[in-house]
Amino acid sequence: MSAEELDITSLDQDAVSILTRIKSKEFTAVQVVLAFAKRAAIAHQLLSCLSDFFLEDALVRAQELDDYYQKTGEVIGPLHGLPISMKDHIYLAGRKSTAGFSGDILQPPAEKHGHLAQILHDAGAVFYVKTNLPQSIMHLETYSFWGQVLNPLNTKLTPGGSSGGCSALIAFGGSPLSVGSDIGGSLRSPAAACGIWTLKPTTLRIPRGATAAQPGTDSILSTFGPLARSLRDIDLWFQVVLGAQPWIREYNLVPIPWRIPTAHNWSGSDGRLRIGVMWHDGVVLPQPPIRRALKTLVEALKRESTKFEVVDYEPYKHFETGELAHELYFVDGGACIRERAGVTGEPVLPLTEWVITRPSVKDHTTHELWELNLRREALRAEYLEYYNAQKVDVILCPAGAGSAPALGTCKYWGYTNVWNFVDYPAAVFPTGLYCHPATDVADPARAYMSDADKDNADNYNPATFSGAPLCLQLVSRRFHDEIVVKALQEVSQILPLADE
Amino acid sequence: MSAEELDITSLDQDAVSILTRIKSKEFTAVQVVLAFAKRAAIAHQLLSCLSDFFLEDALVRAQELDDYYQKTGEVIGPLHGLPISMKDHIYLAGRKSTAGFSGDILQPPAEKHGHLAQILHDAGAVFYVKTNLPQSIMHLETYSFWGQVLNPLNTKLTPGGSSGGCSALIAFGGSPLSVGSDIGGSLRSPAAACGIWTLKPTTLRIPRGATAAQPGTDSILSTFGPLARSLRDIDLWFQVVLGAQPWIREYNLVPIPWRIPTAHNWSGSDGRLRIGVMWHDGVVLPQPPIRRALKTLVEALKRESTKFEVVDYEPYKHFETGELAHELYFVDGGACIRERAGVTGEPVLPLTEWVITRPSVKDHTTHELWELNLRREALRAEYLEYYNAQKVDVILCPAGAGSAPALGTCKYWGYTNVWNFVDYPAAVFPTGLYCHPATDVADPARAYMSDADKDNADNYNPATFSGAPLCLQLVSRRFHDEIVVKALQEVSQILPLADE
Repeated sequence: MSAEELDITSLDQDAVSILTRIKSKEFTAVQVVLAFAKRAAIAHQLLSCLSDFFLEDALVRAQELDDYYQKTGEVIGPLHGLPISMKDHIYLAGRKSTAGFSGDILQPPAEKHGHLAQILHDAGAVFYVKTNLPQSIMHLETYSFWGQVLNPLNTKLTPGGSSGGCSALIAFGGSPLSVGSDIGGSLRSPAAACGIWTLKPTTLRIPRGATAAQPGTDSILSTFGPLARSLRDIDLWFQVVLGAQPWIREYNLVPIPWRIPTAHNWSGSDGRLRIGVMWHDGVVLPQPPIRRALKTLVEALKRESTKFEVVDYEPYKHFETGELAHELYFVDGGACIRERAGVTGEPVLPLTEWVITRPSVKDHTTHELWELNLRREALRAEYLEYYNAQKVDVILCPAGAGSAPALGTCKYWGYTNVWNFVDYPAAVFPTGLYCHPATDVADPARAYMSDADKDNADNYNPATFSGAPLCLQLVSRRFHDEIVVKALQEVSQILPLADE
Repeated sequence: MSAEELDITSLDQDAVSILTRIKSKEFTAVQVVLAFAKRAAIAHQLLSCLSDFFLEDALVRAQELDDYYQKTGEVIGPLHGLPISMKDHIYLAGRKSTAGFSGDILQPPAEKHGHLAQILHDAGAVFYVKTNLPQSIMHLETYSFWGQVLNPLNTKLTPGGSSGGCSALIAFGGSPLSVGSDIGGSLRSPAAACGIWTLKPTTLRIPRGATAAQPGTDSILSTFGPLARSLRDIDLWFQVVLGAQPWIREYNLVPIPWRIPTAHNWSGSDGRLRIGVMWHDGVVLPQPPIRRALKTLVEALKRESTKFEVVDYEPYKHFETGELAHELYFVDGGACIRERAGVTGEPVLPLTEWVITRPSVKDHTTHELWELNLRREALRAEYLEYYNAQKVDVILCPAGAGSAPALGTCKYWGYTNVWNFVDYPAAVFPTGLYCHPATDVADPARAYMSDADKDNADNYNPATFSGAPLCLQLVSRRFHDEIVVKALQEVSQILPLADE
């Protein structure tokens, strides 16, 4: 790669800065996508992060954008020339899509872009790669017939999942912005594992257009969202997607524009942003590096006592929400997943097998499904009543039970899937801190809250996680997506934290 | 009843005028609820429209309101002193609730108001009666173990259903405003049968709090709404309910306030309101009086050509939407309904039996339910694409295949349940016209569009329907509830129509 290409793809550039450099004519769209495609190709050879690569098409598209800009003096839209990587299941015109099953490539390519992809295209995005995702899209790691994706910051670790192809690619420098999806942590686990930013929005806001692992199940809904290098890129993505008023064309969406309030009346005394800190979820104690990151951030917030009111937030039935979420994911007992793996006889991978054989997973009769819906609605109602009573603006909590897990070991979803269960928007952000084996020593043996707690403690070996980034999660109630971003804008004024 | 009580309950008074008279101290809340309770008691003896009557509690509540007003000089809220009748399934503190099954009265009374009732209570409403509803809440008539409700305008006819206790009571003068629900026409059928007003809103806007006939099924959602004597009462009800921001307390609701635009950019040329007229749904031709009402209104609209742009709207797969809606209502094949009737061994009533044995109704496995969801989502997506292509602001169409049906004969739901299937808001309003046997002669034999079409034609006997009011329906796309009301405000400027 040339010095110029290294500059274009440098990790200190975000989408907004790249767009500015295209608009100022420092670089053309062709130069930009070529640079990212080269770096993506290198990333893939080292990390197995891609599932499709179509640079020829991307160059044609970028040239069209350059010509348009040259001719009219106007950019085509707010994403003019931005290379965006897309998770493999999303429909792109002329490309195949998979849900992580090899049998899916027997299907013909999509005739047209899905709704979400079309909006990004219309805003000027250049698609050039699709990214790897795990078999069934239901691991918090990324291992499929396309290969096992590695974390570019430490190849013994997973880049998270299921959007781990996206996160590994961004963290390596092969993409400035990526589109993934989240039904149990699939945007947040990869962002947290790779030290980047995401917002899992409330469902029913973001348009769709992707192949599904379990077509027709709707017991718990997934949503699409961006993985990015900065918070302002997250904001830009939502501005573009919701600025297109997707609810006019897509039945399920609610007509709520993206509006980050310029001023907001926070709930704390003297108008301070009131942050509830959930130190752990009552099920699994986070590994030492995560506890250190959370403690360091909370201390920094408390030092800014004119801005932030920091209180404790006790978890409410997070074990129950996690178990019920797993039951809701696979209401057929996992039969559909097994059938889809069976199309080509590919093996059911260990993390697929694990997730479809969780204790609560089983096939349901119609009346059992109704009963399940009632339990879901009752627990969601209880949770909301509890949340409202805490009178916090946001919850600050871990994004997982540790930093990026060692490959093949990620079996606790509770820190992310609770927010899918209650459908609260949740952002993940890098604190600026990293795992340090010398600082983050293992805990002595203690009384464990659950089997998962003991497994998580046993899995912690300081040397394994050296250099893994430490991210945290910020959450608010349903449809308070913009409040999460607004709060994170304020919190991020004290980021990055410095290593002690 | 005294002259004063007849004045208070007079059919030319709506909720807004009654509230004004309480606020101006022309009447007390006690006087008002006593008058309505007396008239309701008479109504019930003639029409079987009530399921519960609790005047003592209502008088205590009304006296509290009068005392509060006397003491503070302020009304307690925008519904201060308004007697509101509530459909039997809605939870009211201390009262029993049924879904039209006698076994439900074995259950204890509700400990507290449901969310919707609480909001109305907090705004100053006085609850005094609950209203009859059909067995399973799934007839477009109103016949339960409480009795068969008759239409006060013509006792050979049904007042519609399932909220027919509400509509009969209002049309008799026993209530100024009532709260019902709609999953297939249950607000609109009664409004149309009794010549009153309603708006079935988009789902996910109105809070809930009621017992369900089929707890836990969610394949098609119901919604609550008002039955009223005027359009401004409809507007007031939504202002109150959504002004309480129910989404803060209830998980499922979307945070969209009630806002009728003061000015709206209509889609017709020269800013005219563009109305698509659906003369029939391609399945069942409406009986002659309804066709006359629609034609008369369309001609009146066309005369106001500076305000209205009137075009034809062709139905899109309304047979398919209707059949699929029925399949979605009873995804267990009707087993739950039979079990609930079986609790006390009450007979499964003919219209219950009919509706749970529609050709598309059957029990489903998990994967069949997923398949059903996919068909539902595909047809909804198709319908929206079709609707958008018509570029109309609203659809004007029949509210049913005839005026109020003869008792026991209402077996075609297509004019209402299509709008539940696609979840579009739909208002019903009186045209001011009525069935006239001399004018509305029966059609000669013709080629029929369906079996239901032939049945509907065979059921038409001009003498039977004498004096039945003629109502129509106005519809717009999902979440355009306020647009429906805004459009109806404009249309209603040429109402009531005069008989020719």
